[in-house]
Amino acid sequence: MKIVKPSTIAGVMELLPKEQLVFDKIKNIIEESYKKYQFMPIDTPVIEKNEILFAKGGGETEKQIYEIASESKDMSLRFDLTVPLARYVAEHFQDLNFPFKRYHIAKVYRGERNQKGRYREFYQCDIDIIGHNSLSIYNDALLPRVIYDIFDKLNFSDLTFKINNRKLLNGFFRSLGIEDSTDVLRTIDKKDKIGLDNTYEELVKLTCEEKAKTIIDFINNTASNQTLLEKLSGFSDNELFLEGLDELSKVYNYMIDLDIPDKNIKIDLAITRGLDYYTSTVYETFINGYEKIGSVCSGGRYEDLASNFSKQKLPGVGMSIGLTRLFYQFQELGLIDDQIESFTDSLIIPMDEEANEYGIEVLKKLRSRGEAVDIYLEDGKFKKKMTYADKLGVKEVIILGADELANKEVSIKNMQTGEQIKKSFADL
Amino acid sequence: MKIVKPSTIAGVMELLPKEQLVFDKIKNIIEESYKKYQFMPIDTPVIEKNEILFAKGGGETEKQIYEIASESKDMSLRFDLTVPLARYVAEHFQDLNFPFKRYHIAKVYRGERNQKGRYREFYQCDIDIIGHNSLSIYNDALLPRVIYDIFDKLNFSDLTFKINNRKLLNGFFRSLGIEDSTDVLRTIDKKDKIGLDNTYEELVKLTCEEKAKTIIDFINNTASNQTLLEKLSGFSDNELFLEGLDELSKVYNYMIDLDIPDKNIKIDLAITRGLDYYTSTVYETFINGYEKIGSVCSGGRYEDLASNFSKQKLPGVGMSIGLTRLFYQFQELGLIDDQIESFTDSLIIPMDEEANEYGIEVLKKLRSRGEAVDIYLEDGKFKKKMTYADKLGVKEVIILGADELANKEVSIKNMQTGEQIKKSFADL
Repeated sequence: MKIVKPSTIAGVMELLPKEQLVFDKIKNIIEESYKKYQFMPIDTPVIEKNEILFAKGGGETEKQIYEIASESKDMSLRFDLTVPLARYVAEHFQDLNFPFKRYHIAKVYRGERNQKGRYREFYQCDIDIIGHNSLSIYNDALLPRVIYDIFDKLNFSDLTFKINNRKLLNGFFRSLGIEDSTDVLRTIDKKDKIGLDNTYEELVKLTCEEKAKTIIDFINNTASNQTLLEKLSGFSDNELFLEGLDELSKVYNYMIDLDIPDKNIKIDLAITRGLDYYTSTVYETFINGYEKIGSVCSGGRYEDLASNFSKQKLPGVGMSIGLTRLFYQFQELGLIDDQIESFTDSLIIPMDEEANEYGIEVLKKLRSRGEAVDIYLEDGKFKKKMTYADKLGVKEVIILGADELANKEVSIKNMQTGEQIKKSFADL
Repeated sequence: MKIVKPSTIAGVMELLPKEQLVFDKIKNIIEESYKKYQFMPIDTPVIEKNEILFAKGGGETEKQIYEIASESKDMSLRFDLTVPLARYVAEHFQDLNFPFKRYHIAKVYRGERNQKGRYREFYQCDIDIIGHNSLSIYNDALLPRVIYDIFDKLNFSDLTFKINNRKLLNGFFRSLGIEDSTDVLRTIDKKDKIGLDNTYEELVKLTCEEKAKTIIDFINNTASNQTLLEKLSGFSDNELFLEGLDELSKVYNYMIDLDIPDKNIKIDLAITRGLDYYTSTVYETFINGYEKIGSVCSGGRYEDLASNFSKQKLPGVGMSIGLTRLFYQFQELGLIDDQIESFTDSLIIPMDEEANEYGIEVLKKLRSRGEAVDIYLEDGKFKKKMTYADKLGVKEVIILGADELANKEVSIKNMQTGEQIKKSFADL
């Protein structure tokens, strides 16, 4: 028979079972935290109609879409979970209760250029809260609280939520006479990559030296959160600016009310989320000491989620963890291996077939007590059986030979110390 | 703005959040049971290379494959989890420990004709145990034990595992002089659909009246499991038949050892799994009283999993639950609505903005005790707030007005009885 070389397509993450257990553990922590704060699950088809995916039109992601081959050429794989959410909320509008708090943990697809740490299939873990006509600013503080819980459980509670407000930024730019702020926002967004000097140079090109200097002074602020909020209140009387400041201030105060430590919050006027569709609050999240891996959870507030699919006004706020990329980065930093625990604690090894039934009795007794135990009933020499136990990473093997069977005993061998003891079945 | 009508592609299941909670609950029960018996998770890409998916060639499923549109036309969506498993085991052979016990719960894709209860995207929940060179027959008994646990937890423990053995069947046919049994197996597989008389007629066409009668007598056996096994032992001295009988008998006895009640096992010589690639044990599972919905979990043993991808001999045994279809059938039978529980037990409603912070205090106190509680901080009249609580299906609302705020109290309204009581914050 012709053998086809077994391999996955390029640009996907496929893990060995022990790594998969760690991945799933992290995914579970995320899911349980989302549920703890009363977010409800949704699950939408991976394939969507092109008219849905392309409704907004344009954009980089469109070029990266995986289309399904068919005569009608009308379906593709989703490239994010936000367009499916918009479609879902518009489609099921009558059956949903607003504010609608949903989480969605699932794979999305992008035909990215093949490079390290970039994936063509990856998990996104999204939470969004969608209001009908309006949505309390409290929700903008709730999302980082949920994310804080997650990273706390992952032992990365030393993180920084950088928050900002687009209205505040745009109001500020308008007070400088800059009406279309797209290019300015995009430039500021690159600040951490290109450095403050280059940001200044680019801003000079877009505006003038004086304005560029004012903008740099504005965004490069290192005051404490409280001081900064106070300072800002006298900064401009532009209406949009003041609205943004009021929102930012409320988000910050609610975050404090929700027990996010002040040291983990940084109002950072340079956070813009570049090309995204956010209109008010924006966030990025950094693990202190690991800033290089970039924001581990970003998001923001948008004015109207489903304007392409519904006449209803549906403002929302969302945050997203790119789990596949995060896991890759944890692996690169060597943080995953430590997390690999034994999945099976004990392995029962009957020495020959006569002891099989007795082995199953022992298995049932231990399993009924909730122990992570398994039995090895394959033919083979003792050495082969011990190699299996060793590879499995068990803490102990329970050996059942002729003696043990005759006396209704078990021999327990500690795999670390090599120590071996006998116990009666009754005492197990 | 042009509005695109929001809709999914045809032939997919998309649930409302409350139904999704039930779906996820079932999925969780399946996953936890798989893990309890020490099956390890794997997660493979939804997109596979065509050379992998088409390695075996032919078959009905091939026509149903969703291909990815690309110049090279070399990728498609998986149509089951078995081909990806074969590819995975062959690709990672060196890093796996055999017998390799894995579970895989994920979506697969088939361009099925659009009809009720048939899905183009659906969840499969597979367990397989893969040996290297050989695999103990014990594993064939372990799988139904795991499945029994699952349906027990779903309150459907009244089920019947129908088991049979292909070697036994083929040996029996050979002893009748039938060398190629494909058509005979296919005919027998249709027995429950077309009835015994029609099966007989078809068998006559394939063989002769005498042989057809012998086959019908053989498969239409209603003896108890023990009696049937004893009866069979004197039935034929064909080697393959005796090998199959020995296996069937061992599987049955191990199932009893593993505490599957005898009344839930039926050795059924008419179970063949038609066109599937099984070579030894085959199973189907029926919920008693709901036989009409068909087998809820099928599977069997195969001689060599990955012969297309590896020279290693990898015998295995597997069972699979088609979760999406099962959920659909439970819905049709009206078994799902009863399962819908309240997700949020209590909702805190501050009457106006002044009470918001106090509301968050109450929220934190209740949440820290693990209660499923949420807060409603949107603007609006009291009626709107109560409508939200009502739709959410909460058991009680916690109302915080000016009085409650002033006295550090809460008013708790039972949503079923309408009864309202006051409690101090300290007593909460």
